Amino acid sequence: MPRFRLDIEYDGTPFVGWQRQENGPSVQGAIEAAITAFCGNSVSIRGAGRTDAGVHARGQVAHVDIDGDWPADTVRDAVNHHLRPAPIAILAATIVDADFDARFLAVKRHYLYRILDRRAPPALDRERTWWVPKRLSAAAMHRAAQALVGHHDFTTFRAAECQAKSPEKTLDTLTVRRRGEIVEIRASARSFLHNQVRSMAGSLKLVGEGRWDATDLEAALKARNRARCGPVAPASGLYLMAVEYQE
Amino acid sequence: MPRFRLDIEYDGTPFVGWQRQENGPSVQGAIEAAITAFCGNSVSIRGAGRTDAGVHARGQVAHVDIDGDWPADTVRDAVNHHLRPAPIAILAATIVDADFDARFLAVKRHYLYRILDRRAPPALDRERTWWVPKRLSAAAMHRAAQALVGHHDFTTFRAAECQAKSPEKTLDTLTVRRRGEIVEIRASARSFLHNQVRSMAGSLKLVGEGRWDATDLEAALKARNRARCGPVAPASGLYLMAVEYQE
Repeated sequence: MPRFRLDIEYDGTPFVGWQRQENGPSVQGAIEAAITAFCGNSVSIRGAGRTDAGVHARGQVAHVDIDGDWPADTVRDAVNHHLRPAPIAILAATIVDADFDARFLAVKRHYLYRILDRRAPPALDRERTWWVPKRLSAAAMHRAAQALVGHHDFTTFRAAECQAKSPEKTLDTLTVRRRGEIVEIRASARSFLHNQVRSMAGSLKLVGEGRWDATDLEAALKARNRARCGPVAPASGLYLMAVEYQE
Repeated sequence: MPRFRLDIEYDGTPFVGWQRQENGPSVQGAIEAAITAFCGNSVSIRGAGRTDAGVHARGQVAHVDIDGDWPADTVRDAVNHHLRPAPIAILAATIVDADFDARFLAVKRHYLYRILDRRAPPALDRERTWWVPKRLSAAAMHRAAQALVGHHDFTTFRAAECQAKSPEKTLDTLTVRRRGEIVEIRASARSFLHNQVRSMAGSLKLVGEGRWDATDLEAALKARNRARCGPVAPASGLYLMAVEYQE
């Protein structure tokens, strides 16, 4: 049975998150239903990142086995057809080796967190950004962020419900830069703890406002204490941008 | 009575257009109601561009006279407060001379038309772009577009219901360029006919697909015949970006 890699974009706003759940519509559930509507068999897909409710994706990756002899582009177009009107799009479908695993073989995940940093509330970018009316120093945020790069115990930046075995992770890069009214935080790592990017973004915002300095952020990391984390940034600003695999 | 200039962003999707109308909610009506809720008096505002239903703005400009002695930033914040939850934001309020007129003193209007040019439908940019699944040549569109620049009779690119006295306009610039999956069409002029940008965008799309060449576009212009226009591009891709005034 051929295995397909799916590259996926979605607006996370109307979903309870990536993962199938009892309490509402999930991205995974919507895609599985669309595949079933197309090929007639029930399927189970696995995604690289289990994004939370309201979190978006420009480059989520999943894999699925589909019975039959479908050309990859037919799978992409047919699934997109059956996904309507859900705000989910299959950007690409590719036939891959039977041992490809979107979740376990991922070697790097790239996230973007977008802050709309201006006095006026969002009109066009609502549900696409975190609105912070106070002026932030992206330069101070970037400098402070470098203390989080590397191998650390990220207990401070980990949700209570996180299921990872260890709180230790290696953060490859964490950059902050301003593009006009948008402050972009980019984080890359093999894997992240639950809520790690939003927890780091919420603490970096305190640095940007001048309420924390770089020393405070580093002390929060070293405390390995969830209570030392800044308020977790809202889901609306977070995007899973890309997932990398070994060639 | 002090006059204020308002710089305005809005998501045009839920509105019948800028202008107050009997048949549904308008951007103008929502802003007037918010100002009245704040200052207690009924007001009338005038905008630089009468955008159609579904058309967005990043830089609409309007003026309004508000009784009292309000600081401009208070006006901005109070009107934004009363606008909620409508997707409209006052980006700036500025006290201007009593003879400032947002509509009649505008010397240049800048529009952006965004095409999402990819096989997969939009998930995150729905209602923010025109989805064209066929690959477009932005270079061919740009070259052909130059025939429309300058002073012309734009009857071909004018809505039947256009109320302008003359179909002659001077188009200052019309550029087309690709940025990844987005094809951006930018048009600048002192003023435009009704539906002119969407009419030009719809015809340029035919050029990008290879169904028209540059000669066809120029012949359509010279025919001065509405029947020669390509299908008008949908409202969802159009943004009023900025309005310029003489210093």
